[in-house]
Amino acid sequence: MAGNSFGQLFRLTTFGESHGAAIGGVIDGCPSGIELDIDAIQTDLNRRKPGQSALVTQRKEPDEVVFYSGIFEGKTTGTPIGFAIHNTNQKSKDYSHIKDSYRPSHADKVYDEKYGVRDYRGGGRSSARETASRVVAGAIAKQLLSSVSIDAYVSAVGPIALDENYQELNFDLTESNPVRCPDPDKAAEMEAYIRQIRKEGDTVGGVVSCVIKDVPLGLGEPVFDKLHAELGKAMLSINAVKGFEYGSGFAGAQRKGSQHNDQFNADGSTQTNHSGGVQGGISNGMDIYFKVAFKPVATIMQTQTTLNKQGEMVEMQGKGRHDPCVVPRAVPIVEAMAALVLADFSLLNRSTKL
Amino acid sequence: MAGNSFGQLFRLTTFGESHGAAIGGVIDGCPSGIELDIDAIQTDLNRRKPGQSALVTQRKEPDEVVFYSGIFEGKTTGTPIGFAIHNTNQKSKDYSHIKDSYRPSHADKVYDEKYGVRDYRGGGRSSARETASRVVAGAIAKQLLSSVSIDAYVSAVGPIALDENYQELNFDLTESNPVRCPDPDKAAEMEAYIRQIRKEGDTVGGVVSCVIKDVPLGLGEPVFDKLHAELGKAMLSINAVKGFEYGSGFAGAQRKGSQHNDQFNADGSTQTNHSGGVQGGISNGMDIYFKVAFKPVATIMQTQTTLNKQGEMVEMQGKGRHDPCVVPRAVPIVEAMAALVLADFSLLNRSTKL
Amino acid sequence: MAGNSFGQLFRLTTFGESHGAAIGGVIDGCPSGIELDIDAIQTDLNRRKPGQSALVTQRKEPDEVVFYSGIFEGKTTGTPIGFAIHNTNQKSKDYSHIKDSYRPSHADKVYDEKYGVRDYRGGGRSSARETASRVVAGAIAKQLLSSVSIDAYVSAVGPIALDENYQELNFDLTESNPVRCPDPDKAAEMEAYIRQIRKEGDTVGGVVSCVIKDVPLGLGEPVFDKLHAELGKAMLSINAVKGFEYGSGFAGAQRKGSQHNDQFNADGSTQTNHSGGVQGGISNGMDIYFKVAFKPVATIMQTQTTLNKQGEMVEMQGKGRHDPCVVPRAVPIVEAMAALVLADFSLLNRSTKL
Amino acid sequence: MAGNSFGQLFRLTTFGESHGAAIGGVIDGCPSGIELDIDAIQTDLNRRKPGQSALVTQRKEPDEVVFYSGIFEGKTTGTPIGFAIHNTNQKSKDYSHIKDSYRPSHADKVYDEKYGVRDYRGGGRSSARETASRVVAGAIAKQLLSSVSIDAYVSAVGPIALDENYQELNFDLTESNPVRCPDPDKAAEMEAYIRQIRKEGDTVGGVVSCVIKDVPLGLGEPVFDKLHAELGKAMLSINAVKGFEYGSGFAGAQRKGSQHNDQFNADGSTQTNHSGGVQGGISNGMDIYFKVAFKPVATIMQTQTTLNKQGEMVEMQGKGRHDPCVVPRAVPIVEAMAALVLADFSLLNRSTKL
Repeated sequence: MAGNSFGQLFRLTTFGESHGAAIGGVIDGCPSGIELDIDAIQTDLNRRKPGQSALVTQRKEPDEVVFYSGIFEGKTTGTPIGFAIHNTNQKSKDYSHIKDSYRPSHADKVYDEKYGVRDYRGGGRSSARETASRVVAGAIAKQLLSSVSIDAYVSAVGPIALDENYQELNFDLTESNPVRCPDPDKAAEMEAYIRQIRKEGDTVGGVVSCVIKDVPLGLGEPVFDKLHAELGKAMLSINAVKGFEYGSGFAGAQRKGSQHNDQFNADGSTQTNHSGGVQGGISNGMDIYFKVAFKPVATIMQTQTTLNKQGEMVEMQGKGRHDPCVVPRAVPIVEAMAALVLADFSLLNRSTKL
Repeated sequence: MAGNSFGQLFRLTTFGESHGAAIGGVIDGCPSGIELDIDAIQTDLNRRKPGQSALVTQRKEPDEVVFYSGIFEGKTTGTPIGFAIHNTNQKSKDYSHIKDSYRPSHADKVYDEKYGVRDYRGGGRSSARETASRVVAGAIAKQLLSSVSIDAYVSAVGPIALDENYQELNFDLTESNPVRCPDPDKAAEMEAYIRQIRKEGDTVGGVVSCVIKDVPLGLGEPVFDKLHAELGKAMLSINAVKGFEYGSGFAGAQRKGSQHNDQFNADGSTQTNHSGGVQGGISNGMDIYFKVAFKPVATIMQTQTTLNKQGEMVEMQGKGRHDPCVVPRAVPIVEAMAALVLADFSLLNRSTKL
Repeated sequence: MAGNSFGQLFRLTTFGESHGAAIGGVIDGCPSGIELDIDAIQTDLNRRKPGQSALVTQRKEPDEVVFYSGIFEGKTTGTPIGFAIHNTNQKSKDYSHIKDSYRPSHADKVYDEKYGVRDYRGGGRSSARETASRVVAGAIAKQLLSSVSIDAYVSAVGPIALDENYQELNFDLTESNPVRCPDPDKAAEMEAYIRQIRKEGDTVGGVVSCVIKDVPLGLGEPVFDKLHAELGKAMLSINAVKGFEYGSGFAGAQRKGSQHNDQFNADGSTQTNHSGGVQGGISNGMDIYFKVAFKPVATIMQTQTTLNKQGEMVEMQGKGRHDPCVVPRAVPIVEAMAALVLADFSLLNRSTKL
Repeated sequence: MAGNSFGQLFRLTTFGESHGAAIGGVIDGCPSGIELDIDAIQTDLNRRKPGQSALVTQRKEPDEVVFYSGIFEGKTTGTPIGFAIHNTNQKSKDYSHIKDSYRPSHADKVYDEKYGVRDYRGGGRSSARETASRVVAGAIAKQLLSSVSIDAYVSAVGPIALDENYQELNFDLTESNPVRCPDPDKAAEMEAYIRQIRKEGDTVGGVVSCVIKDVPLGLGEPVFDKLHAELGKAMLSINAVKGFEYGSGFAGAQRKGSQHNDQFNADGSTQTNHSGGVQGGISNGMDIYFKVAFKPVATIMQTQTTLNKQGEMVEMQGKGRHDPCVVPRAVPIVEAMAALVLADFSLLNRSTKL
């Protein structure tokens, strides 16, 4: 209730600060009988972890998940799945520059004022490190949803954007480059841009798109818990996200009804899919697709004048090893949150009819 | 849990179909001791109701709210507030054209398949008529949040968009025209455009913006229930919404960190507000602002070929009295949902510290 | 969240004060496709209503339920079921004796201090009149659970108690007498005792027992939401309840394990059923049985010295038409709450396995 | 939602099987700013742990809690508190006798049928070992409730029961004997009885009473979440509990209203306290007291004929080191659950008034 849980029936609760002893979580409500592929979970964690390529932060965090419960002889048992990712070397850092000063566009100041006390080491609870726990749970949710495919990818880095329709993309190429953009030419452009930005000691925002195929009709619970509303909340809860649109999105607001309506085919599918696979908050069996906007990382390697705890303006020099652009590592997080939403709705949907 | 409740401590549950006996709801968790201004509630309902201007649907629905409980001698008592809006003339309609046929880009077909049975009259539960209950609850939430101002307005109708910064707008003008756009010149343009669209038997989408001032610092519960994540879910749960962005939004994804960071002033405010009043999911005391994209109304006064229950393709002629553009009536709904989110977080925030 | 909802998936929210305009509720999560027997709902309401026999309060309240939504052409639609029971004659009462004085062993004083304001008419929200809404929802839950039988009955009135094992009782006789005791001889004794107590201007407590047969194995969600823990909460939430025990109950605490263990039969049933049909919080297919203790009604027709709002000790004369013993009317309430618990767990159980 | 969480605002989620890698939990919603006394937490754990006296199971489990998050420089930070208790030697046991056979009056069979798979080692999730996590969270809740005193004690072992009124007991003596009965003479009797029972290879049930003093008026949320209803659920969720009564309890059902009503004193207190400190579901400032009935431990050191997975009747010999009577170790668990209920309601109560 204080915001660290997600989902109603397939429910993840996470804990942990960036540089505390461990992060982790509990998944309650995972059905019994899933033969878990533990390697697939670690693979998703590796897609999120620092140091995986020259484009991301060079911090060294192995991010190995340990399971404490809920799995027996390789299968889920229906009891809660407790897990942890131990933080390594968390004591060796120097935090003196952020202990008393508030980094611009970071949560330091609001945490201090809301809670009166703050674990400032590495951003504490407000750090995106928390999302590793989501990736673990999302990877399990994916295995519950074995017939559904969820493909996220980078569709924009700063001003460089994919203009293709997603149908023309080959998602097998997403992991072929460190940007995680399925268009190799654009990927190369994006990569060059990120390298340049990093050289400037700056950062840049970007967009992650996601396409979900083979979703069974009927997921989503109107009226408040519409499928796209939960997807939106899920994405907006990821660090640095500023916007969410699905189907025709903001562009749809400019259209006329006669252009925008998705006409039916005789088989129940639709000729177009401006609806983005969701009608009235319920999946209609067509592809679900949406976009998630990420702001540039707030920690820059430049000097900024900022406020300290004592109310004085002070100079602050960015240091540490940070991502110049967050979207390549955000791809598995977007997939994980989408999987959590779908897993939960697929369980909820079992209660719909007599 | 089946999706008809919103909020954790200030919690609204709604019921009712468009053309059933009544719609209404229960607000649980409203604090005791609020001297309710019942007229203000009805005023917000009137801003949402059909027939209020030449620009909106000409259906006649008085939308008068009746309170059953939770109010005594003009004050809230802390017990649940039950209320209803009785539907008038709900039996006189002819629904033969939608009883067995699925309107394109409507929820008819997914409801039929998800639930196996559907109250097709006027769209039943999937009708935006449900939002009248939200407006009632939101108007009460506004009274709980008496020091906060929440101003929504139409910022785009189809291709016609406000380009000003919201600081230059005078929200006192929002209600001065039927479009609910605070810029009189743009409002006139928008109005003319909507009239033309209606003449064509067509509909058009639009954007509602919302500005919230004087929000106390500290609202929002990381990590999953971030303030902007709940606002996003709240907005995306409104019928016809396709996208949500706050602060710099999608444009922020194109920026560099050095441009995007909000530098502090010595008083704790920030020089810019790309963050949109929310940092790390918690209000920081600056203005909260966001945009909500609405698709064009799916019911058009043109002939469409569509699917019926028997799987046949049939001709369907739009009829009835529908809105050519939904955004003027959506303004009070956006405000109501924003108020519900803030009311809930303001109660939750009371539990933050020892 | 402020306590007026019950259940997770089959979820009832109630509203209403004893002498306000109406009481009622919303059932969210009722599956679609149930052909509702409305008469059966009214029948249960009639078993609870005042004035039904010479043994209970002689107040006249017709207690007719009106449904607003969620039912179409006789079937549940899966959308929320809104309903109300309008209070009649609620304005004609004289409440001067309780407006400022706190009735002993009533909730008057705690409501006043907790909420700062109180609808004192007829006890307001703290009145057992609220339970009529539970009976409506419980009657619908029974129809969802059509293969399960739920039989509550009066097993004690003051010192007069049934000593038979429930297996020897014929529940068809429960409704044959106004006490709702299936043993006609004991019923007659109890009836005589209640008449005498009423003559003295006094009241008396009692016990309601409940037997549930044909419960499918597997209901209940360990560890906190054990089947008997939810049944206990459900019963303890009924006005005037002081205790709950199931299976061997308090007597079981005196036994040895060698006497108490239920040995298996080869078909999986057990030779004895001290476990009361629940093992580790999960139904095991045997009969569930439990007892609920009710205190004597606090409103007596005698003069009591009590406290008023001003902190003075004042004389108070009981008046109005009150029950001398609450258990006969509590029987359908106990059944309703049991049905709500089982309905919710039967929906939750659909999510247990892959 | 699948039952492994307790509380709304102060919310504990537990995980872990008896002989898995670890048990533990996450506390979400603990307010920031509590200076935690870690030793006090370990002290409560030690009161629950095996091997603490000659009267309880001689298993060796150190039960040391490790905190992963939510505490910084000795204070709670308002972020989730993750913790674990690692199981030691969990691999060395021999479970062949329970792998395929269902112990009578244990949860083995229902788990197998509900989930289709079961961690049979030491009872898995159905083991009372899970309650160690509750004791950790309860010990933190006690520190949030620093002005409230919560004293549980053994009031009956089999047929040997305390007959004193609790006011005459000296709770300082509770920990002076291994039975945890504050009456030294009765404690000696109980101890002798338990030793004899153990010698017989048998087990025996008992009763734990609990007295809570200095509870602020106003805790509890009518109508479903009455204070005593949540206390009842909390207690009934503890392994082996068969009944709960508060205040006058089952004895109150035999009384007349004229005897049972608690008459007010001029200071707002009451002359008697049959209400048990709760009126209409809300604490009234008087002592809260209740009783919890525990059945005899089902594992006995005698041969029983039972069912196996294959549906055959087989001989089963109890082995291992089990408690002959569970109540001495249940005392801190009852206190912990009471503390969780009160902590949650004290946070919820902050939202009651404007």
